[in-house]
Amino acid sequence: MIKRLCIIGVGLIGGSLARALREAGYVGEIVGSSRREEHLQEAVDLGVIDRFDTDPARAVEGADMVFVAVPLGAMGKVMEKIAGALAPAAVVTDGGSAKASVVRDIVAAVGSMPDWFVPGHPIAGTEQSGVAASFAGLYRGRRVILTPLEQTRPDAISKVRAMWEAAGAKVNEMSVEHHDEVLAATSHLPHMLAFALVESLARLSEQREIFEYAAGGFSDFTRIASSDPVMWRDICIANREALLTMLDRFHTDLEALRAAVDRGDEETLLRIFSEARQARDAFVSPVEKVKD
Amino acid sequence: MIKRLCIIGVGLIGGSLARALREAGYVGEIVGSSRREEHLQEAVDLGVIDRFDTDPARAVEGADMVFVAVPLGAMGKVMEKIAGALAPAAVVTDGGSAKASVVRDIVAAVGSMPDWFVPGHPIAGTEQSGVAASFAGLYRGRRVILTPLEQTRPDAISKVRAMWEAAGAKVNEMSVEHHDEVLAATSHLPHMLAFALVESLARLSEQREIFEYAAGGFSDFTRIASSDPVMWRDICIANREALLTMLDRFHTDLEALRAAVDRGDEETLLRIFSEARQARDAFVSPVEKVKD
Repeated sequence: MIKRLCIIGVGLIGGSLARALREAGYVGEIVGSSRREEHLQEAVDLGVIDRFDTDPARAVEGADMVFVAVPLGAMGKVMEKIAGALAPAAVVTDGGSAKASVVRDIVAAVGSMPDWFVPGHPIAGTEQSGVAASFAGLYRGRRVILTPLEQTRPDAISKVRAMWEAAGAKVNEMSVEHHDEVLAATSHLPHMLAFALVESLARLSEQREIFEYAAGGFSDFTRIASSDPVMWRDICIANREALLTMLDRFHTDLEALRAAVDRGDEETLLRIFSEARQARDAFVSPVEKVKD
Repeated sequence: MIKRLCIIGVGLIGGSLARALREAGYVGEIVGSSRREEHLQEAVDLGVIDRFDTDPARAVEGADMVFVAVPLGAMGKVMEKIAGALAPAAVVTDGGSAKASVVRDIVAAVGSMPDWFVPGHPIAGTEQSGVAASFAGLYRGRRVILTPLEQTRPDAISKVRAMWEAAGAKVNEMSVEHHDEVLAATSHLPHMLAFALVESLARLSEQREIFEYAAGGFSDFTRIASSDPVMWRDICIANREALLTMLDRFHTDLEALRAAVDRGDEETLLRIFSEARQARDAFVSPVEKVKD
């Protein structure tokens, strides 16, 4: 149970955690902070937070749990402001999509990695953003990855884990580096491909017509290209190295496929497509298959 | 109104057309042909066709409309068999995803491009295949592209157009070459990316774990990688040149994006992501947006 939760960045991610914990009866008061007062007022009007302060240092006062859900590029600045204002027993966690950069930015802002900070990443979200899009069920059945460091206090890890479980999520722990590799492969690379594909097609002269003939699968395939550009710019900067590694790996595989098309190599094409179908079908859960 | 429709290749595409025309009361008798008798018997049992013949030459006898819905690689062989057995006024059309190769194969099989053949392509389908997956609504509101040639009889074009409209589709005409370019961009390239991505990830040593952490968007993004490998092998061979052109165009754009990530170029990344989001949002219809 959290007595006072402070959420810095009350958008889809922060707002949905607030709603989920409220619904679960797991939280007393919820205080919000953001740069823009009208967003915070909207969050109050929607019943997502109880009150707000645009100054994050004042917002965290007396909170036993702080969730930082700002774009990766703003993490350092927020930590600079709140580190000295936290209650003695306060635990802080975040929702950033890359973890090495968060650790780097915190160390730069605070001087060293504090034992009260638990780096975290809920693997959930939609292409929507903003508090109006938030909903209590966003984390239900979803995974949250925590990447605690050696110095992270065990009780801080437990509290963050319990919070996410109260929101309905399944919590796993792994190293910062491994998290960044896994996410580069399963999320950051696919987003790059979707952005680049839509960009490619949009620059064809017949773009209007091109999109008119796009079949059903195309809409699914490119949905992730509607994601927030600022968030993705920050992710590219933050997880640069792991993303470049995955881009190069993909490039090698796409080149092999291109070469097979070029030489009309039916056997290789059939092998690649069959393996991909098999791998995809194996990982999609029965529930998702029904949805398919 | 079609008196006797012959469908060669009674799977998802052929079976769904049969169901749609039957539902619309637009067809008298439906005769099916396929290589495998058990599939044809299944189609009869499901009420999709009235009777069948595994010999396509016998199956087309007396039919006023013939729909060839076989993999692209089988088109030439089918045409060789049926060309001499058609009724004098019969019209033939197909459902192949690439059109230059269909024209090429017909000319090779028959000696010249007959005036009774209307190359066509319904832009519809799912990742399912087989007659059991067929349904009457598959073409409702979907586009069908016809690519008639100079010698194609106008009344043949009208009959094929009317058939697709009876099945609920919107029919457009364009040149063979333009069709193949548009489809390479909107369908064949995205499929290559999805296949290559899943293949790339499947070969990572931690593949089981990798897929476990894949978020919601990943499932949508890779759905098309579950498509029929044989069909896609044939499409790659059939639409090789247009596909290679699009692969190279995409490669250039992905390289530009990679270079921006590599040098930490925030401005370029933000521009690319913003343009892609805008283009994607502009082409997705309001109906699909609600579904999103």
